[in-house]
Amino acid sequence: MTNNRKKPIRWGMVGGGRGSQIGYIHRSAAHRDDVFALAAGAFDIDPERGRAFGVDLGLDEARSYPDYAAMFATEAGRADGIEAVSIATPNNTHFAICKAALEHDLHVICEKPLCFTIAEAEELKALSEARGRIVGVTYGYAGHQMIEQARAMVRNGDLGEIRIVNLQFAHGFHSAAVEEQNASTRWRVDAKFAGPSYVLGDVGTHPLYIAKVILPHLKIRRLLCTRQSFVKSRAPLEDNAVTLMEYDNGAIATIWSSAVNAGSMHGQKIRIVGSKASIEWWDERPNQLSYEIQGEPARILERGMDYLYPEARIDDRIGGGHPEGLFEAWANLYRRFGFAINRERGLAPAGIEEHVFPDVDAGLEGVRWVENCVRSADAGGIWLDYR
Amino acid sequence: MTNNRKKPIRWGMVGGGRGSQIGYIHRSAAHRDDVFALAAGAFDIDPERGRAFGVDLGLDEARSYPDYAAMFATEAGRADGIEAVSIATPNNTHFAICKAALEHDLHVICEKPLCFTIAEAEELKALSEARGRIVGVTYGYAGHQMIEQARAMVRNGDLGEIRIVNLQFAHGFHSAAVEEQNASTRWRVDAKFAGPSYVLGDVGTHPLYIAKVILPHLKIRRLLCTRQSFVKSRAPLEDNAVTLMEYDNGAIATIWSSAVNAGSMHGQKIRIVGSKASIEWWDERPNQLSYEIQGEPARILERGMDYLYPEARIDDRIGGGHPEGLFEAWANLYRRFGFAINRERGLAPAGIEEHVFPDVDAGLEGVRWVENCVRSADAGGIWLDYR
Amino acid sequence: MTNNRKKPIRWGMVGGGRGSQIGYIHRSAAHRDDVFALAAGAFDIDPERGRAFGVDLGLDEARSYPDYAAMFATEAGRADGIEAVSIATPNNTHFAICKAALEHDLHVICEKPLCFTIAEAEELKALSEARGRIVGVTYGYAGHQMIEQARAMVRNGDLGEIRIVNLQFAHGFHSAAVEEQNASTRWRVDAKFAGPSYVLGDVGTHPLYIAKVILPHLKIRRLLCTRQSFVKSRAPLEDNAVTLMEYDNGAIATIWSSAVNAGSMHGQKIRIVGSKASIEWWDERPNQLSYEIQGEPARILERGMDYLYPEARIDDRIGGGHPEGLFEAWANLYRRFGFAINRERGLAPAGIEEHVFPDVDAGLEGVRWVENCVRSADAGGIWLDYR
Amino acid sequence: MTNNRKKPIRWGMVGGGRGSQIGYIHRSAAHRDDVFALAAGAFDIDPERGRAFGVDLGLDEARSYPDYAAMFATEAGRADGIEAVSIATPNNTHFAICKAALEHDLHVICEKPLCFTIAEAEELKALSEARGRIVGVTYGYAGHQMIEQARAMVRNGDLGEIRIVNLQFAHGFHSAAVEEQNASTRWRVDAKFAGPSYVLGDVGTHPLYIAKVILPHLKIRRLLCTRQSFVKSRAPLEDNAVTLMEYDNGAIATIWSSAVNAGSMHGQKIRIVGSKASIEWWDERPNQLSYEIQGEPARILERGMDYLYPEARIDDRIGGGHPEGLFEAWANLYRRFGFAINRERGLAPAGIEEHVFPDVDAGLEGVRWVENCVRSADAGGIWLDYR
Ligand SMILES: NC(=O)c1ccc[n+]([C@@H]2O[C@H](COP(=O)([O-])OP(=O)(O)OC[C@H]3O[C@@H](n4cnc5c(N)ncnc54)[C@H](O)[C@@H]3O)[C@@H](O)[C@H]2O)c1
Ligand SMILES: NC(=O)c1ccc[n+]([C@@H]2O[C@H](COP(=O)([O-])OP(=O)(O)OC[C@H]3O[C@@H](n4cnc5c(N)ncnc54)[C@H](O)[C@@H]3O)[C@@H](O)[C@H]2O)c1
Ligand SMILES: NC(=O)c1ccc[n+]([C@@H]2O[C@H](COP(=O)([O-])OP(=O)(O)OC[C@H]3O[C@@H](n4cnc5c(N)ncnc54)[C@H](O)[C@@H]3O)[C@@H](O)[C@H]2O)c1
Ligand SMILES: NC(=O)c1ccc[n+]([C@@H]2O[C@H](COP(=O)([O-])OP(=O)(O)OC[C@H]3O[C@@H](n4cnc5c(N)ncnc54)[C@H](O)[C@@H]3O)[C@@H](O)[C@H]2O)c1
Repeated sequence: MTNNRKKPIRWGMVGGGRGSQIGYIHRSAAHRDDVFALAAGAFDIDPERGRAFGVDLGLDEARSYPDYAAMFATEAGRADGIEAVSIATPNNTHFAICKAALEHDLHVICEKPLCFTIAEAEELKALSEARGRIVGVTYGYAGHQMIEQARAMVRNGDLGEIRIVNLQFAHGFHSAAVEEQNASTRWRVDAKFAGPSYVLGDVGTHPLYIAKVILPHLKIRRLLCTRQSFVKSRAPLEDNAVTLMEYDNGAIATIWSSAVNAGSMHGQKIRIVGSKASIEWWDERPNQLSYEIQGEPARILERGMDYLYPEARIDDRIGGGHPEGLFEAWANLYRRFGFAINRERGLAPAGIEEHVFPDVDAGLEGVRWVENCVRSADAGGIWLDYR
Repeated sequence: MTNNRKKPIRWGMVGGGRGSQIGYIHRSAAHRDDVFALAAGAFDIDPERGRAFGVDLGLDEARSYPDYAAMFATEAGRADGIEAVSIATPNNTHFAICKAALEHDLHVICEKPLCFTIAEAEELKALSEARGRIVGVTYGYAGHQMIEQARAMVRNGDLGEIRIVNLQFAHGFHSAAVEEQNASTRWRVDAKFAGPSYVLGDVGTHPLYIAKVILPHLKIRRLLCTRQSFVKSRAPLEDNAVTLMEYDNGAIATIWSSAVNAGSMHGQKIRIVGSKASIEWWDERPNQLSYEIQGEPARILERGMDYLYPEARIDDRIGGGHPEGLFEAWANLYRRFGFAINRERGLAPAGIEEHVFPDVDAGLEGVRWVENCVRSADAGGIWLDYR
Repeated sequence: MTNNRKKPIRWGMVGGGRGSQIGYIHRSAAHRDDVFALAAGAFDIDPERGRAFGVDLGLDEARSYPDYAAMFATEAGRADGIEAVSIATPNNTHFAICKAALEHDLHVICEKPLCFTIAEAEELKALSEARGRIVGVTYGYAGHQMIEQARAMVRNGDLGEIRIVNLQFAHGFHSAAVEEQNASTRWRVDAKFAGPSYVLGDVGTHPLYIAKVILPHLKIRRLLCTRQSFVKSRAPLEDNAVTLMEYDNGAIATIWSSAVNAGSMHGQKIRIVGSKASIEWWDERPNQLSYEIQGEPARILERGMDYLYPEARIDDRIGGGHPEGLFEAWANLYRRFGFAINRERGLAPAGIEEHVFPDVDAGLEGVRWVENCVRSADAGGIWLDYR
Repeated sequence: MTNNRKKPIRWGMVGGGRGSQIGYIHRSAAHRDDVFALAAGAFDIDPERGRAFGVDLGLDEARSYPDYAAMFATEAGRADGIEAVSIATPNNTHFAICKAALEHDLHVICEKPLCFTIAEAEELKALSEARGRIVGVTYGYAGHQMIEQARAMVRNGDLGEIRIVNLQFAHGFHSAAVEEQNASTRWRVDAKFAGPSYVLGDVGTHPLYIAKVILPHLKIRRLLCTRQSFVKSRAPLEDNAVTLMEYDNGAIATIWSSAVNAGSMHGQKIRIVGSKASIEWWDERPNQLSYEIQGEPARILERGMDYLYPEARIDDRIGGGHPEGLFEAWANLYRRFGFAINRERGLAPAGIEEHVFPDVDAGLEGVRWVENCVRSADAGGIWLDYR
C-alpha cells in the first residue's frame, strides 16, 4: 500500500466546512495515500467561516475562497490550478456545482445524490463525456474490501444463480424530530434542500449501489415502493420506506430505508441468496463476510486473509485480524477515483483495469431509483416498470 | 414448575407416527408436566405401522387404532375415553379430522394450518363453540418466554407507538429439489396435500402469529404479496414470498417467508420498531431479546432473570443462564392448552386468566392471511384490503 | 428418538423437593423418554413437606417417604421396589446416601460432587463394583450433542495434536453476599455443607468433565491453583479460582471457576486448541460449535445437521435450526444412565457400546481435582504433581 | 477533528521500509491530522532499497538516508532538521537507535518492546529526562476510543472495586513453523533479534498496557508465568504463555499470550470484573464495549455515541455507527504523541492535560513485565514478587 506520490492530483473542495458531517472523511480519504493534495477550497456557505477554515487546514490564504464560483474561475487561471474538486454540500446544490466544475474542466467527486432528476444526471453525464472529465460519487461503504470479495464470489459462481437480494440501511437517529435542534438533519427533511426524498436517497442508495457492485449483471425490471413519514412534520418527505424489486433474471429484492429504526446504529445489511449459497455483510462489522453454503457450516470470512480472492486483496493496508473501518473504505474509493483521474492525466499505473468505482452512471442510477420509488409510492405503492 | 398431575387429561394423537417430523415434540410437550397422558392413537397413514408404533409407545394394544375414525368412535364409547386429541398429519387432512374430533366432543390441538379456507375455519370455530370444546393450534415458537416478555413490554409502552414490524422465517433446507428424495418435503410442495401455498402457510404463519401475540391491538388494513417458485417444479406453490402489510395505526410490516434462503438454519426473526425503542428476537437464540432504546446502549435481556416482567416469568423452568429450547416452548404451549381444557373440565387453577394461546381464532387468522396473500400474489402482487 | 418403554426403570429420588434448584430437571430428564418411572421419593429435609410434595407429583402416598433410610428399607422389601435412585441433596449428604443406596443394591445417580474425599469416592467405587450397580454423576452439560461432536472431531484428528485447553465456568450471580437472603446459596458457601471448596466443586468440575469427554487420552500431570474469597465472609471457601494444569502430552490448560464474574450469565466456555485447528463451545449457545482451522474461515457447526459425526447425531430429537437446551442435555444423560442400568438388567438395546457417561470414575475424578486444587491453593498456589 | 497544522512536527523514520509489517500504519497515523510531516528517513537495513523507498514516498533524495546514524548526524546540522523520529525496526536494534536519537535531542516514538532489559529502559528514561525529550511507545490498540471509555468508567466507580482482570492476545498465525518461509516471523522467534521472549513481548504487552490505562491505580504484587514452545524449533523462545498476577488490592489477573491459538484472528480480549459490573472489549470489534451490571441486562456501548464519557469522545472522528478501525486508534496515539511533543515545543493547545499515552514508563513497564515473566517461567513457573 504505497503509491507513487510524486505528482499528486491538485484538489479542491466545495463544502465540508467546520462542523460538517462529512468533510473530514473526504480530506482524510483523499490524503490517505497522497494521491490527492488539497490546494484550494470554498468550504462553507458562510464565506468568512469558510476562508478561516481553509487557512486552518493549511491552505494558502489566496486559495481559500469565499464561494465555489470564485474558486473555479480563479483556479482555472493558475498554472498550478486544481485539477479535481470534491463537492460536499447539501443536496440541492450538487447539480449546479458539478456542472460549473465540469465546465471548468475539473474532475468531480460529488456527494450523493448526484442531483435531483434523471434529466439533470444525464446532462452531467453528457458534459463529463464532452469534457473528458470523470465524475465520481461517494458511495463510501462500497470501498470496503469485503464488497470486492462478494463481487468476486458472485462472478466465480460461488453462490449459484442469484435468487433473493435483501438490502437495508435503517438507522434510528431520527426516531424523534431531532431536526428541531440539529441543522445537519434539518435540511435533510426539507424537500427544498434534500430533493424528492429523504431516506430513499440519503440511505437507501448506499446498499443499492453495493448490490450493483456485487451483482453487475442484474437489471431491475420493475419495482414498488411504499414510504411513510412517522414524524408527521417531515411529510411529504419520508423517514421510512420499503421497496420491492424484481430483477430481469427473476430474482426478487427488498430495500428497507429508514431513519426511525429506533436503537439501531446503521443497520446497513446486505444478504444475497443464490441457488447454492448466500453471503451476508453488515457495515458495522465490515471486516467479516458470512458465507453460507446450503448443507455446510456457515463460514466467517475475514478481511486481509490469504484465502480471499485477489480482487479483494488489492486494497489491503494491514493484515487480517486488524480491524479496518470506514476511513479505509473511503480511502480505497478515493484511490480508485485517483486512478481514473490519473488515467486521464496519462499517469495511471498498469494493471488496474478491473477497478470499479461509483461513476456518473452510478450517480445517475441512484437518482433514477429514487425517482422510480417516489413515483411508485406517490401512486399508492404500485408496481412500475423501471425506467 | 410443578403441576397438579392427579387428573391428567386423557389424550390421543392422530399422525405423528414413526419417522414423522413433528410427532415426537407433541408427545414430549404434552407429557412434560403430566398435564396430558397419552391414552390412544392413530399414528400413521399405514394402519399396521401405526398400531405397532403405538404399542411401542406403551399404549394398550386395543387403543392403538388403525385410523382416526375408529379411534374417535371407540373412545367415545369408553368411560375412560380420550378427552382431547392432537392432529399431526399432512395439511390436507386437518379439516376433516378436526371436524370429526369436535363432533365427538373432543378438545382439539391441531397442527397448522388449521385448514385450507376461511369458510372451513369458520365452520370449525362454530362447531367448537357449539360443542364447548377448545381448538388449539401449535404455533410452537410462540411458547418461548421472551415472546411473553415482548408482549408485556409493548403493553407497558416500553417501545412507544409501534411503527415498523419486520418478520421473517426464511430457511434454506429446500434450496434444491430435495422433495425428489424426501417424503416429508414432497407433500409440502404439492397443492393437493399442502393447500393453496407452501412457505406462506408452512413458515410465514409462525412469525405472523408471534406478531399477533406481541401486538394484539394492531389490525392488518391491507397487504400485498409476491411469491416465487425458484425450484420451478414447485409451481404454482411458492418456495419464497414477500408480504407487505399496513396496520390500522399506520404501522408498516414485512414478512419474508422462504425455504430457499440457502445456508440459513431457520432465520425466524422478529423486529418491532416503536417510536421510543425496538426489540429484536431470533428463534435460534431464543433465550435472548435485544432491547434497543434510541440513544442508549442496546440491552440484551436474558430469559429467567428477575428483571423480566412477571408475565414472562410464569413459565420459567430453570434459572437464567441455562438455555431453554424449543421443547420448553412447546411444553409451555401445551400447558396453556391444558389450562384452557381444564377450565372446561372445571379443574383450572386460579390466577392464570391472562394466559394467551393460539386458539381457533389464531388458526382462522393464519388461514385468512394465507388466503389474502395468495389472492394478492396471484393478481400480480397488488394491494388488497385485508378481509 | 423413541424408546422401548415397556419396562421403565423403577426410580426414586432423594432431595429435589419443592423449591429446590435442581429437582425439576432430574424428573424432567428421567421421564423424557420413559426410560425411568418415578415410583418413590424422599424429597425434602422436612418430612412433611417432602411427603406432600411426592403426593402432588402423583406418587402413591405410601411411597412418598419422610426420609431416605425409610425409603431404602421399605422399597427393598417390595416386589415392585425401586431399582435406581437419584440424589439431589446438598453436598455433605451425598456420600452417606450413595453408600446406603448401593448397600440396598440400588443403581445410583448422584449430584456432583459425588462426595468430599478421594477415600470416600474410592469406597463408593468399590461398593458399586461389588454390588454390580452403576453410579452416575449428573455433569449435565456434557449431554449436549455438540460435546459428542467435539469428542469425535478430536478422535478423528481434526484438530491435530492438542496444545491448549481453556475452560471456564464463571457466572456472576454471587457477586454480592446474596446468601444472606437465599438458602440455596447459603449452604454452598458453608464448608460444613459444601465440602472443601465452593466454586471449584460447584462450577469448575463441569468443564473439567467436559474436557475429559472430549480429550479422553490426556492425563493431568501437575496443577497449580489460586483461590479467592472476594466476598470476605465466604472464607475459607472461595468464590473465584484459577487453576493451571499441564497434561502428560505437554498441553497446557486453564480453568477459571467463579461466582463473582459480575454480569455474566454462566460463562461456561470451552476452547480447545490443536496444532491444526481449534474448537470453541459456550453452554449458553449450546447448538453451535465454532471450528477454526488455521488459515481458513471459521465455521459455525450447528446441532442436528447431517454434516456432524454420527456419534453426535445419535441423541438428535429434532432437526437443525430448532434450538435444543439444557433439558435435552440432561435427558440425553439420563438415557445413557438408563442404557447402562438396562445393560445390568439384561435389557440393553444393541449397538450403543460407545456411549460415554459420567460414571463413578468421573465422580472420583471431580473429587480428586478439587482436592488437588485446594491443596495447591492452600499451600500458596504452588505446582503439585497430580495424584 | 481538525488540528492546527501550521507547524507540523518535522519527523523521520528508522525502519518500516517497503514490505515491512508496520511501517505503513506509522506513516498513516502520523500524517492523519498533519501533526507530523515526514521529512527524512532511513527505512531499510538495505541502504539502497531504503533510499529508493524514501524517494518513492516523496522525500527529498538527500534526506532519504542509508542508515540512521547518517540521518541523525546530518539532520542535526540542518535548520529544518527533524525534531522527532519513529523507530520501526526489529527489536534488537531499538535500544541503540533510541539512545542515539535522544542523544541527538530528538523526540522518539519507538516500537515495542522499547528494549530488552530494565537497565536499558532506565538508561533511556534518564536520557529522555536529561534531554527534555519524550519517548513514546506504540501500543497502538490503546488508542481505541472505547479504552478511554473503560478508563473513565473505572475512575467513576461504575464497576465497583476491581476483582478480576482477564487479558489475552492469542492469535493463531504461527501455529505451524511459518518462519521457515516468512522473514517477518523469522526474527521474532530468534532470541538474537527478538530478545528474551517471543509472545510475551510481542503480543502480551499490548493488553498489559491497556489494563494499565484502564486500571492506573493497580500495582502488580507478584506473578507466575509458564511458557511453551509448541513449535519445538522456537525454544527457548515461547509461542504460548500463561501469566497469573496478583494486584496489590487483592485482584487477580491472567494474561494469555499466544501465536498458536489456531484459527483465531487476534483474540485480543480484555475483561475486567468489578464488585458491581464487568466490562469486556475485543480488539476485532473495537467499536463496541460490553457493560454488564450484575442483575441487569448486558449493555452494548457503541463508539461515537453521546452517552459515552467526554474522555472517550475527545478523539471522535465520525459519528456512531460508522466503524472506526486500527488506523484511527494509531492516529489517536500519534496525536497524543504530537500534543506531548508540542507541549515541549511550546505549541500545545490548552485543555488536553488528561491525555494519557504510552510513554517511557509504559515502555519500561513492558520490559519489566517480560523480564519478570521469563524469570518465573525459567524457574519452573513459580510465584515471584514483581520487581
Ligand atoms: N456518502 C455518505 O456516506 C454521506 C454521509 C453524510 C452526508 N453525505 C452527503 O454529503 C453532503 C453534505 O452533508 P453533510 O451531512 O456533511 O451536511 P452538513 O450540513 O453537515 O454540512 C454541509 C457543509 O456544506 C457547506 N455548504 C453549504 N452550502 C454551501 C455552498 N453553497 N458552498 C460551499 N459550502 C456550502 C456548509 O457550510 C457545511 O459546511 C450531502 O449531500 C449528504 O447527502 C454523504
Ligand atoms: N408447528 C410446527 O412448527 C410444525 C413443524 C413441522 C410440521 N408441522 C405440521 O405438522 C404436520 C405434520 O407434518 P410432518 O412434517 O410431521 O409430516 P410427516 O410427513 O413427517 O409426518 C406425517 C405423519 O402423519 C401420518 N399420517 C398421514 N396421514 C394420516 C392419517 N390420515 N391418519 C393418521 N396418520 C396419518 C404419517 O404416517 C406420518 O407419520 C403438518 O401439518 C405440518 O404443517 C408443524
Ligand atoms: N448438576 C448441576 O448442574 C447442578 C446444578 C445445581 C445444583 N446441583 C447439585 O444438586 C444438589 C442440590 O442442589 P440444589 O441447588 O438443588 O439445592 P437446594 O438447596 O435448592 O435443594 C436441596 C433439596 O434437598 C432437600 N434435602 C436436603 N437434605 C435432605 C435430606 N437429608 N433428605 C432428603 N432431602 C433433603 C431439600 O429439602 C431441598 O429440597 C447439590 O449437590 C448441588 O451441587 C447440581
Ligand atoms: N505496535 C504493534 O502493534 C506492532 C505490530 C507489528 C510489529 N511491531 C513492532 O515493529 C517492529 C518492526 O516489526 P515489523 O513486523 O514491521 O518487522 P519487519 O521485519 O516486517 O520490518 C522491519 C523493517 O525494518 C527495517 N530495518 C531493519 N533493521 C534496520 C536498521 N538497522 N535500520 C533501518 N531499517 C532497518 C527492515 O528493512 C524492514 O523494513 C518490531 O519491533 C515489532 O515488534 C509492533
